[in-house]
Amino acid sequence: MPKERVSHEIHLKEHPIGVPSESNFALVKTTIADPKDGEFLVHNLWMSVDPYMRGRMREMRSYMPPFQLDKPLEGAAVGQVIESKNKQFKAGDYILSNFGWREYWLSNEGNGLSMIDPNMRPIQSYLGIMGLTGLSAYVGLLKFAEIKEEAGEGDTLFVSAAAGAVGSIACQIGKIKGYHVVGSTGSKEKVTWLLEEAGIDNAFNYKELGKDNITSELNKVCPNGFDIYFDNVGGSQLEAAIDNMKIFGTVVLCGMISQYNKTTLPTGPSNLMLAITKRLKLQGFIVRDHYYMLNEFHKNMSKWINDGKIKWKETVFEGLEKAPKAFISLFEGQNIGKMLVKIGP
Amino acid sequence: MPKERVSHEIHLKEHPIGVPSESNFALVKTTIADPKDGEFLVHNLWMSVDPYMRGRMREMRSYMPPFQLDKPLEGAAVGQVIESKNKQFKAGDYILSNFGWREYWLSNEGNGLSMIDPNMRPIQSYLGIMGLTGLSAYVGLLKFAEIKEEAGEGDTLFVSAAAGAVGSIACQIGKIKGYHVVGSTGSKEKVTWLLEEAGIDNAFNYKELGKDNITSELNKVCPNGFDIYFDNVGGSQLEAAIDNMKIFGTVVLCGMISQYNKTTLPTGPSNLMLAITKRLKLQGFIVRDHYYMLNEFHKNMSKWINDGKIKWKETVFEGLEKAPKAFISLFEGQNIGKMLVKIGP
Repeated sequence: MPKERVSHEIHLKEHPIGVPSESNFALVKTTIADPKDGEFLVHNLWMSVDPYMRGRMREMRSYMPPFQLDKPLEGAAVGQVIESKNKQFKAGDYILSNFGWREYWLSNEGNGLSMIDPNMRPIQSYLGIMGLTGLSAYVGLLKFAEIKEEAGEGDTLFVSAAAGAVGSIACQIGKIKGYHVVGSTGSKEKVTWLLEEAGIDNAFNYKELGKDNITSELNKVCPNGFDIYFDNVGGSQLEAAIDNMKIFGTVVLCGMISQYNKTTLPTGPSNLMLAITKRLKLQGFIVRDHYYMLNEFHKNMSKWINDGKIKWKETVFEGLEKAPKAFISLFEGQNIGKMLVKIGP
Repeated sequence: MPKERVSHEIHLKEHPIGVPSESNFALVKTTIADPKDGEFLVHNLWMSVDPYMRGRMREMRSYMPPFQLDKPLEGAAVGQVIESKNKQFKAGDYILSNFGWREYWLSNEGNGLSMIDPNMRPIQSYLGIMGLTGLSAYVGLLKFAEIKEEAGEGDTLFVSAAAGAVGSIACQIGKIKGYHVVGSTGSKEKVTWLLEEAGIDNAFNYKELGKDNITSELNKVCPNGFDIYFDNVGGSQLEAAIDNMKIFGTVVLCGMISQYNKTTLPTGPSNLMLAITKRLKLQGFIVRDHYYMLNEFHKNMSKWINDGKIKWKETVFEGLEKAPKAFISLFEGQNIGKMLVKIGP
C-alpha cells in the first residue's frame, strides 16, 4: 500500500457575485499518495494570482473552461520535484506548471510543464517578469501594437494599471524602445515607483483625479495624443484613452480589470465612433495563443534585465491559506508589480 | 467684362441638432462668371449624398473640416465641362469632383478632379459602385478584414445596412469570395432585394425584430458566428455582432449611421470585454486614406460587373433643390443602394 502525504488545496466553494470574498473559497485538507512507477511528486513553492482567473470563476465558459466547484483552483505555480519514479523528472528539479492553489501534486506526464533553471533567475520570476505576465506585455506591444524598434520624436505610449504586473513591464518595454510613456495607477506610492524606479515620463493617480477628469489629464500630459494605448482596465480609462488617441493609433486590449466584478451590464465607451474618424485599431488578445514567442521573449527579456533596463517588484503573501486574500487584493490594487503567494519554504 | 451665368447652390444655414431638417439648408441663387484664360466651367449633372456628410455639419473638426455656414456644401459630383479656356479640360469632358451641392462651378486647376469615360459605365456610377462607395466596401473587406480570396466551408460575413450603398457592395464582394453572407436591413422590400437580387444567404429586417432580438436572430441564422462583421451602423447592431463573432474575428468599422444624429452621449457596446476573450480586432477606417487602391479596385470591379456578379440599385431625387431632402432621407433608410441627386438634364 502506498504511503500518503497530507496536502492542502484551495477550492472554489461558490461562484462569486461581484467582488470575490474569502468566503467564496475553502482551504481543504487532502492526502496525496506517494508516486507509483512513472509518477513524480511536486511540492509547490510559489503560485501566481492573476485577474484573468476571475473570468474562470463564472459558470459560463469563456476562453478557458470555468473552475469547478469543490475542486482545487488552477493557475501558474513553480514547484520542486521531491520524489520521482519518472525518468524525465528528477528529485530537485524545478517545474513551472498550471497546478497552483495546492501544496503538492502528483503527475505521470510532462504535458504543459516546463523545467526552470534556478541559477538563471529567482524561480518565482517565471511567474512574473519571465512568465506569462512578461510575455503579455511583450506580445501586446511587439505583435499587436507593432511598437517601433526605435521610436521617433513624439512617439507615445499610454499604459493603464501601469504599476501592475503586466503594466509595469509594458511601460519599461516602451521606454527601452524610446517611447514617451505615460502611466495611470491607483496610489501615490505607485506613482512614485513608476517615475523613480520604472523611469517613465508621466504617471498619475486616477483615483485622485476622478473618472471624469482622466481625458483632460491625458490631454494635459500628452497634448498630441498617444500612438499606442495598452489597456489593462477598460471602462472610463479606455474611453479617456480613445479620446486622446492619435489618428492611426492602436489600442491593445489586454485586460479590463475594472469590469470583471460588475454585476450589472457595463456601459461601453461612448466615443467608439472616434475609432472610425481616427482610424483606430482595437485589438484584443490572449497571451496563451502566443507561446510560440516565448523563446524570443526570454532571450530579449534576459538581455534587458542583464543590462539593467527592467526593474520589477513583487508583492508577496505568505502561505497557501492566504491565496484567496492575495487574489482578492488584486481588485483593490494592493500590489505593485506581480502578486505572488509563497507556498513552500 | 465677363458675362455671368445664373447658378444655384445649397448652403448650410445652421448646424443641425439631432436629425437634420430641410430648414437647416438654403437654396441660394448666385452667378458664375464665364471662364477666363486657364479656367473651365463645369455643369454638374449628378451629385452624391452620403451619411458621412453629417459629421461635417458639426462645428467641431472631425477628419475633415466642418462645412461653413452660408457657403455651398461639398461632396462628390459628376459634371460636364461646358466652356473651357484650359488646355487640360475640353468642353464635353466629364469630370468627377468634390464640388457637389451646386449647379455650376469654375476652376483653373485639375487638383482632386478626375476624368470619366461615359462610354465605360453610366456616369453616375462613379459616385456609387465605381466611386468612393464601392471603394469603401472593397478597402474594408480586402485591406482591413483580409477577406479570403476563396472562402472555405463555414466562412461567414455579416453586413449591416446591407441594402445601402456600401453595404450592398460589401455583401456581393463577400459572395464573390465564397462567403456565407448575412445582411441586416430596414424594410421587407430591402430584404427581398438582398435575397433575390444581391443573392446573399440570409437577410432580416432589424426594425421588425427590435433591438433586443438582433443577437438571437444572428445566432439563429448563423449559429457558429461570423468571421467578419462589416459595420455601417454601430449601436445595438455592433453589440449584437460582437456577441456573435467567432474567435479571431474582425469587425470593420466603416460607419455608424445609428449614432450620427445623437444629441445625448451614446452608450458604447456593453460587451466589449468579449473583444479580449474572443481576440477580436475592431478596425476603423476612412476610405479617403486609400485612394492608392483605386486602380486595383476599378480593375476588379469592372471585371465583376462585366461577369454579372454585382447588382446595384440607385435611388434618385430629381433637382438640386431636392438635395437636402435626399440627404435627410438617408437617415430614414429610404434608399436602396446609392442615394443620388440628378442635377442636370
